[in-house]
Amino acid sequence: MPKISEEQRAAARQRLIDATVAVAERDGVDGLTTRAIVAEAGVSAGMFYGHFDSKEALLAAVVDHKTDELTTLVHAELELGTPMEGVVRALVDQLVRVLDLKVLASFRTGAGTEDALAAQRRINRRIVDAFVPLLEASVDAGVVRPDIDPEAVVEFIDLVIDGLNRRRALDGFVSSDDRLTAVIIAAFERYLLVPQEDLR
Amino acid sequence: MPKISEEQRAAARQRLIDATVAVAERDGVDGLTTRAIVAEAGVSAGMFYGHFDSKEALLAAVVDHKTDELTTLVHAELELGTPMEGVVRALVDQLVRVLDLKVLASFRTGAGTEDALAAQRRINRRIVDAFVPLLEASVDAGVVRPDIDPEAVVEFIDLVIDGLNRRRALDGFVSSDDRLTAVIIAAFERYLLVPQEDLR
Repeated sequence: MPKISEEQRAAARQRLIDATVAVAERDGVDGLTTRAIVAEAGVSAGMFYGHFDSKEALLAAVVDHKTDELTTLVHAELELGTPMEGVVRALVDQLVRVLDLKVLASFRTGAGTEDALAAQRRINRRIVDAFVPLLEASVDAGVVRPDIDPEAVVEFIDLVIDGLNRRRALDGFVSSDDRLTAVIIAAFERYLLVPQEDLR
Repeated sequence: MPKISEEQRAAARQRLIDATVAVAERDGVDGLTTRAIVAEAGVSAGMFYGHFDSKEALLAAVVDHKTDELTTLVHAELELGTPMEGVVRALVDQLVRVLDLKVLASFRTGAGTEDALAAQRRINRRIVDAFVPLLEASVDAGVVRPDIDPEAVVEFIDLVIDGLNRRRALDGFVSSDDRLTAVIIAAFERYLLVPQEDLR
């Protein structure tokens, strides 16, 4: 058997992750089969199972990857010296955008098997762990109110994004996607940001 | 065939609604079959279909009924002269409580058939129509900020309750039910209520 380098392993893994997003966006939740993912990635089923124990494990990796992208982006803004208020707006905004993935919606509304539930709990934990430090940094910078509960706030934002994605999936808006998104961002800003008059 | 009075019809209908809530709370989503509902209500399957075209129609009636109970309760508080701020708190609080029903969670996470989607959209509309007038009355009373978008705000609250119920169902809290609920109520209060200093 030819030896496979670490880079080759990582590349194959990334190809499977990208293929999953592509299949979900193109064919929707129903089209997200292991067979379709493997075909899209151009790998064998054997290779698939060399990287992931199950489709659920792959979906969890997709969410991890997307969460990493998002935290990298927000950290970059922080290092660029973007004012913290802008960072908070970007955080809420990016959470809305980045987590607007059919694959994620599919994962969260999947069947309630014990494995799926455990994976969902892991994802909830992963998202909270990724964003709490950003919120804490914003508190330290004096932009976010110090009396908030960072874990519960991130969980609240995550829950809202989840609900928004589900409503998008069923096209079930009473107002509209735009109106609801505007209210959501305004509500989090008002709840989180230290009022301007206190900054003077 | 003996003639059935309007009262008898209404009573049988109510018995089916109560039975649905009872079965869902006792046996969970999986136990919510038409057979179980009919047995709990002590009526025949024929009588069931004399009142409801389908289980989905019955579930929609349950949600309508619960929404009616909630609006009645909030209107009663208004007529009792409860301060508007208390009414808003009660509204958010009661939305959290009253909509915390297994039957509702089951309905909202049901299979994505066209019928189920249409019913979900109808429920979203029903909830918005029921609560927008309360929010508007609170704006008129000077307690809720006048620059809000009432439809989108009610839809936001509804979406949050929906997400909270799903997280309760899968016991997937990273913080806890209590911490998340506290953050949710505080966030809506801060977003909606006219700040105290402006009332002086």
